[in-house]
Amino acid sequence: MTIIDIINKKRLKKELTREEIKFAVNGYLDSTIKDYQMSSLLMAILLNGMTDRETIDLTDIMLKSGDIIDLSKIDGIVVDKHSTGGVGDKVTLVLAPLLASLGIKIAKMSGRGLGHTGGTIDKLESIKGFNTKISEDKFIEQVNNINIALVGQTGNLVPADKKIYALRDVTGTVESIPLIASSIMSKKLASGADIIMIDVKVGSGALMKTLEDAKELARIMVKIGKSYRKPTICLITNMDEPLGYSIGNSLEVQEAINTLKGNGPKDLLEVVMTLSSIIIGAVNKISNSDAKDLLFKQLNNGEAYNKFVELVQAQGGDINKIAISNKVYSIKSNKEGFINHIDALRLGEIAKNLGAGRNTLDDKIDYEVGLVLNKKVGDYVEKDEELLKVYAKDKGANVNEIINCFRIDKELEAVPKLILDIVK
Amino acid sequence: MTIIDIINKKRLKKELTREEIKFAVNGYLDSTIKDYQMSSLLMAILLNGMTDRETIDLTDIMLKSGDIIDLSKIDGIVVDKHSTGGVGDKVTLVLAPLLASLGIKIAKMSGRGLGHTGGTIDKLESIKGFNTKISEDKFIEQVNNINIALVGQTGNLVPADKKIYALRDVTGTVESIPLIASSIMSKKLASGADIIMIDVKVGSGALMKTLEDAKELARIMVKIGKSYRKPTICLITNMDEPLGYSIGNSLEVQEAINTLKGNGPKDLLEVVMTLSSIIIGAVNKISNSDAKDLLFKQLNNGEAYNKFVELVQAQGGDINKIAISNKVYSIKSNKEGFINHIDALRLGEIAKNLGAGRNTLDDKIDYEVGLVLNKKVGDYVEKDEELLKVYAKDKGANVNEIINCFRIDKELEAVPKLILDIVK
Repeated sequence: MTIIDIINKKRLKKELTREEIKFAVNGYLDSTIKDYQMSSLLMAILLNGMTDRETIDLTDIMLKSGDIIDLSKIDGIVVDKHSTGGVGDKVTLVLAPLLASLGIKIAKMSGRGLGHTGGTIDKLESIKGFNTKISEDKFIEQVNNINIALVGQTGNLVPADKKIYALRDVTGTVESIPLIASSIMSKKLASGADIIMIDVKVGSGALMKTLEDAKELARIMVKIGKSYRKPTICLITNMDEPLGYSIGNSLEVQEAINTLKGNGPKDLLEVVMTLSSIIIGAVNKISNSDAKDLLFKQLNNGEAYNKFVELVQAQGGDINKIAISNKVYSIKSNKEGFINHIDALRLGEIAKNLGAGRNTLDDKIDYEVGLVLNKKVGDYVEKDEELLKVYAKDKGANVNEIINCFRIDKELEAVPKLILDIVK
Repeated sequence: MTIIDIINKKRLKKELTREEIKFAVNGYLDSTIKDYQMSSLLMAILLNGMTDRETIDLTDIMLKSGDIIDLSKIDGIVVDKHSTGGVGDKVTLVLAPLLASLGIKIAKMSGRGLGHTGGTIDKLESIKGFNTKISEDKFIEQVNNINIALVGQTGNLVPADKKIYALRDVTGTVESIPLIASSIMSKKLASGADIIMIDVKVGSGALMKTLEDAKELARIMVKIGKSYRKPTICLITNMDEPLGYSIGNSLEVQEAINTLKGNGPKDLLEVVMTLSSIIIGAVNKISNSDAKDLLFKQLNNGEAYNKFVELVQAQGGDINKIAISNKVYSIKSNKEGFINHIDALRLGEIAKNLGAGRNTLDDKIDYEVGLVLNKKVGDYVEKDEELLKVYAKDKGANVNEIINCFRIDKELEAVPKLILDIVK
């Protein structure tokens, strides 16, 4: 068996055996297979596809390339949640304490991502003192004590995915459904949770451009999860505008806190409620509407917020110290009309350029900067009325570039649905 | 412009601009674009194809990546000839002196290839003293004096192709018609000839597996040649058996000499005559059958052979010193019947393993070893009659492996045509 034989087989659109996939992945990990050979194979996979069997084998081989976290010492049902990448996406910050306040165990280890804003871990680090570097033992102890821990990845989880993903990033081979599915699912499975929730974003700015692709990604991820007897629930959500009003680390934590206190924006709440009611309904064996009632109660009676405060305290953070820049600019509309579209991806890029996100893993995040929308899709805006506020510090933003993210028309178009499908 | 944008464009099956192709090729040559990015782009090109315009631009950009030989100081029409790689292919050794004996200028600079046997230059070096390392000035002087020079490549011809080809070789991206066409044509155009002849081999053991692919390769190469006003003639020939009877450097030179003396095998003569009569017919403005008469005359009156002797002398070789191993084994048939197929590629591999060819450019060739067939496709063989002779030295060959290269049946199948098409 040689890597060239394997590349040629996939180039000719044939199904690879488990042994061939293993040879390629493990050979790449130990560097006997070179970057230039792997990238050629990845492009052949991207263009010629993989069968479900190949995708499941690829996931399994990557999963087994490193450590697998053992959460068996945690009593109860452990839930993990992942998003394929949304702008203003603070769902985990709300969902995790909300579920934990009802006895669900949230034991989440996250890697640090690149992108518009930091990942969940980066967002939490905008709370002064919040420590995300915790040993595995302490992590499990904390989950057993207060039901929740949100920490940075320790150990050597899925090194094959890490190496392959870095290569995909620089070789135009990111946008392949089997490669995305195996990358996400190998990491989720290595993290040891019992139930996996994935928010698959769809839209021009998302990884999945079409609903059809998003459904296909969800289908294969659910199938991979089932092959490990791990219930996997995929929500397919629209990324036609940012989720909620705020983009940027401290700003998003602030909005999450408001949501946990019962004052959340409608779209953010809709995603949180849809995901969490499925879990609570199934675990407590109650109807979906009863589950929703229970969840709303937790938001309104302070229990969800209290769980968040408990989490912050347990990890050394000071809930009263979340710094937000005081260099604030108001961006005003240059015309009146209905907002029919907000370019989430571009706003995300603008926030990143303000300092809210990373281009490379060495970049430092400025937790205090970001954007806060004053209007959402479907709203009417007057001329000179505020569209959003910019919270800047060292770097600026271009006003016209921001205004151009809003499509404002005389007529109101139908507001697109947020949740497009649930696959489980 | 970034290489990832370019990869993504080709991944989505869009046409690359000249500037994009230039960015990729030149960036790869100066190492700002990495091996793993180029291999991903090459696989995308292989699977999604290139338009004729892209292929012509790619050829031009590669051509201009290095030196271009100026043959304008040579009086008369300069002809170059290339083969996509045949086993026992000694066409150039016969064709070149034959055409030179009629006033056509043969100024051929060849690289050293990998493969079954050496390239033309390696074959000539089996003649004791034959010097293939000649300066460009002396090379041109020799062509002006005796019409012919066959030398090794000097200077820096098409470095982009050299680097890209080495990468294709280890990334499963060889078998792409636009990439093969631009690789061959950039080298031929850089070599400066006025007329380009290419023998495109087709068959299970050849680079082109089907007649359809071979025709497509020939079509685009002829179109590339035309775009430089360089008449290009492609012969599509079958590689269902070795060409002629001998495989191996000295042995092939010996067979070429016999052919130049008028005693050549039918199939070798057919390829030589078809190509050379097209040239002579066009240059001398005579009919193809008159051209063939003229060419046969040159073989029978000794002029073609004398030209070969003149070439050998001019480059310091001794025509009487062509060593052939005296360790000779006769391989006999284990049954009787008609030979319906001879596996040229496997016989080529066996000859290479005897020492006749190179696996890496550092390997030393053993000029004295090889194989000489006693039977060709269509012949009848008795049990225990000789199929071929092995000329070995340091390394041996497996008898059964050789016998298995011959398909011998009770019934004679239709002997396949040798020349399948002429594209010009």
